[in-house]
Amino acid sequence: MPEAAAPILTHPNIKDGWFNESSTFWPGQRMSLQVEEILHVEESKFQDVLIFSSKSYGNVLVLDGAIQATERDEFSYQEMIAHTPLNSHPNPKRVLIIGGGDGGVLREVVKHDLVEQVVLCDIDEAVIRLSKKYLPSMAIGFSHPKVTVHVGDGFEFMKSKKDYFDVIITDSSDPVGPAESLFGVNYYNLLNDALNSTGIACSQGECMWLHNELIASVLNFNRQIFPVVRYSYTTIPTYPSGQIGFVLVSKNPDTVFEEPLRSWSTETEQKLCRYYNKQIHSASFVLPTFTKLAIAPK
Amino acid sequence: MPEAAAPILTHPNIKDGWFNESSTFWPGQRMSLQVEEILHVEESKFQDVLIFSSKSYGNVLVLDGAIQATERDEFSYQEMIAHTPLNSHPNPKRVLIIGGGDGGVLREVVKHDLVEQVVLCDIDEAVIRLSKKYLPSMAIGFSHPKVTVHVGDGFEFMKSKKDYFDVIITDSSDPVGPAESLFGVNYYNLLNDALNSTGIACSQGECMWLHNELIASVLNFNRQIFPVVRYSYTTIPTYPSGQIGFVLVSKNPDTVFEEPLRSWSTETEQKLCRYYNKQIHSASFVLPTFTKLAIAPK
Repeated sequence: MPEAAAPILTHPNIKDGWFNESSTFWPGQRMSLQVEEILHVEESKFQDVLIFSSKSYGNVLVLDGAIQATERDEFSYQEMIAHTPLNSHPNPKRVLIIGGGDGGVLREVVKHDLVEQVVLCDIDEAVIRLSKKYLPSMAIGFSHPKVTVHVGDGFEFMKSKKDYFDVIITDSSDPVGPAESLFGVNYYNLLNDALNSTGIACSQGECMWLHNELIASVLNFNRQIFPVVRYSYTTIPTYPSGQIGFVLVSKNPDTVFEEPLRSWSTETEQKLCRYYNKQIHSASFVLPTFTKLAIAPK
Repeated sequence: MPEAAAPILTHPNIKDGWFNESSTFWPGQRMSLQVEEILHVEESKFQDVLIFSSKSYGNVLVLDGAIQATERDEFSYQEMIAHTPLNSHPNPKRVLIIGGGDGGVLREVVKHDLVEQVVLCDIDEAVIRLSKKYLPSMAIGFSHPKVTVHVGDGFEFMKSKKDYFDVIITDSSDPVGPAESLFGVNYYNLLNDALNSTGIACSQGECMWLHNELIASVLNFNRQIFPVVRYSYTTIPTYPSGQIGFVLVSKNPDTVFEEPLRSWSTETEQKLCRYYNKQIHSASFVLPTFTKLAIAPK
């Protein structure tokens, strides 16, 4: 007996062979990617999950209509959100990742030999399960022996941790869904408690071309909590407006994020990284004037 | 007698209230902007010209289906393509702009008091005429007394100039239409002749996320012509993949593009510029590893 044909998948954001990103968070503009095949559509407990193979960006993960990662350009984001804080810390042994269910940040964190323990906490098991199946070059991070995974709310998870982590990386989606609480002052107070006395945190910090008011607000309340607060960014074609920023905070007043405290040799760096290097670590903190003025302490 | 109603304008790239960019030059991806009103549609002698007002990017100039400038983010490109070469030159008196018919680069060049003469040569009078009508914040550059405008082919115009200009800026569209010849070795040989002995040129150099092979090829043939050849970039949401690069060449072997030779005070800088500052001048030359390797001398 012949096997039943697989059902043809559809998704409301895909029309005439193109995926059209949609969000009220960046009104009036839209990125589209040409679709080769819809690989998976699922309403998880928390969000709408779509995975498709694209014509020119490899496989693509979409949550609630917003592109989270494409195989072609994800390395820029994952490398910069991981290596910028890790190379700004003298001895990062214990690392926590909130979000990051695709595994890409994990993949970068375990490149640091000093790291002894990495805990990843993502709210949505579907993202982890589907990334392992459809985004293996990112999910490879999960197979490292130093890694422990918790499925649960990062905000709740953090409440139980005190004075423990050297580095906490928050790899979240935008503040318009399950990740909304990760952009508020209460979350950063929890981060402060969960970090040990010289700990550093780095969070997805939105785009300077779109959300300078939000960025300024996050930086401002952090200036009341942490002695060192900075904003950097990386270029990435498939995030809205082509760049994404990072909010970096440190409990150690001597932290100078702009100059990496540790670095690899150029040869090792080029083996380990496709985007990050010690020069771009520093350059990522140099902002255009309109952003510098918009986010300056008020 | 009542006036006849104005005809309702249409354009093949506008559908359901959205402008969809299209080009074979960046396959599989597409930027869209929400349209408020189509202001002008014209087949000029050289290209398809569209101007519309957008929901969130102000007025937008489109040539042959590709976004050239939006009122919201054009300053990034215009400031960086102008001030990077001008502040790398000790005494820029005579400046030539090839292309740049919207007037935005002109607006930036005349901010330099040292500049005595600016010549702009654009092939398409329609771009100049329509920018004056619909993009006045860019076209304001045309009204400066130091400016002379020639309508004609930049390639031909350059043939008559020898050993004359201090700085030549090529503000062109992509190499798939009237601007194709501006990306070839013959054009850079003409640039070399038109520059005086210590002259500098800066050209629109395409995006590192899309066209590293093209960029590498342009840099490579220039390394046979000029003692100093560099690539820098700026972020800009409405160009494909969110950034655009610049090819910088100098006849003066002592030119160090990475460090501005001249700079404004911070106060003046912030009055004159919204994107450019002396720190981002330097940072714009710091490239991610995948680009650095792709465009290194072979």
